[in-house]
Amino acid sequence: MQLSPAIANLIRALKVLPGVGQKSAQRMAFQLLEQKRDGASQLAEALAHAVEVVGRCDTCRTLTEGVRCQICSDPQRIESGILCIVESPADVIAVEQTSQYQGQYFVLMGHLSPLDGIGPNDIGLDKLATRFAAGGIEEVILATNPTVEGDATAHYIADLARSNNVKASRIAHGVPVGGELEYVDHTTLSHAFSGRKQV
Amino acid sequence: MQLSPAIANLIRALKVLPGVGQKSAQRMAFQLLEQKRDGASQLAEALAHAVEVVGRCDTCRTLTEGVRCQICSDPQRIESGILCIVESPADVIAVEQTSQYQGQYFVLMGHLSPLDGIGPNDIGLDKLATRFAAGGIEEVILATNPTVEGDATAHYIADLARSNNVKASRIAHGVPVGGELEYVDHTTLSHAFSGRKQV
Repeated sequence: MQLSPAIANLIRALKVLPGVGQKSAQRMAFQLLEQKRDGASQLAEALAHAVEVVGRCDTCRTLTEGVRCQICSDPQRIESGILCIVESPADVIAVEQTSQYQGQYFVLMGHLSPLDGIGPNDIGLDKLATRFAAGGIEEVILATNPTVEGDATAHYIADLARSNNVKASRIAHGVPVGGELEYVDHTTLSHAFSGRKQV
Repeated sequence: MQLSPAIANLIRALKVLPGVGQKSAQRMAFQLLEQKRDGASQLAEALAHAVEVVGRCDTCRTLTEGVRCQICSDPQRIESGILCIVESPADVIAVEQTSQYQGQYFVLMGHLSPLDGIGPNDIGLDKLATRFAAGGIEEVILATNPTVEGDATAHYIADLARSNNVKASRIAHGVPVGGELEYVDHTTLSHAFSGRKQV
């Protein structure tokens, strides 16, 4: 069956969203056009506006409007001298939600992955080296994901930090709070044992 | 943490999509802005265009561009004299994918639901009665969903058809093909028994 071209086009365009296939795109298109036309118009405007104005922060590489993001503009955070390295802007939000961390961020927008041709300069490590060399950073917290690539990236940055006399630490890996030991995978559990702390 | 206004606005707007909450909207927004800016622009255009041009088919009430949809404009289907009643445009696609049905459709865009204040005229049954009265329809196939509301709607339309001397039939309910008897719920199974056919 041939759908009306505007609807078919909308369904095709919706499939650009992560986790949205043919069926979900169809459901979204029909629901927007049947019941939520105002929301659809607002979404179209928000998308067009965001694509136009959102760029990268000059200092930490996260997504933001303007030259510098809010966190990098905060003098209190600049004074802290602590830099947290994360893989994506979503990770910044996750760390911010803990309300524990009051330093700055550096967003890699990915991780080292030589097989995919992603080298140090593609994730902004040249810029990071310049920041280390410029001084003002005392400690770097490596909060990349606990995956093979994330760990490799963390090691690489730790080396970079050491050669610039910056202290480097990695976030702790272990049993998640509220989890049950029985259901924790053995790699995590062995990390939890080797990372044990005296009480 | 305060996100940049354009990103916060995009995340809020994405939540209009069915099944998309805060986390998914966040993931979608970052992924679009990081990696799929072209796709995001195309989506914005497709949305704005569809909201502008897509309306209801004058004959069957489905979503379409122009006055009449492709199926309602097909002379062969008009001649068939068969009308299939479905609840939504997605159901039309599902029936069309069987390639079995060659008649016309009437799309209710919902079902009777007195508790929500949805009466016969809200789902276009006044229009359907006019079509019955105008003649040219010999049989109506009731393909509303097998839910309480769908069944009630089917009964109502069957009465309407009878009073206009139009034959009405309901699609069969029973064990899905490829399913296992053991896992079929008992209501479906009792439908399958009462609807048994001689072989």
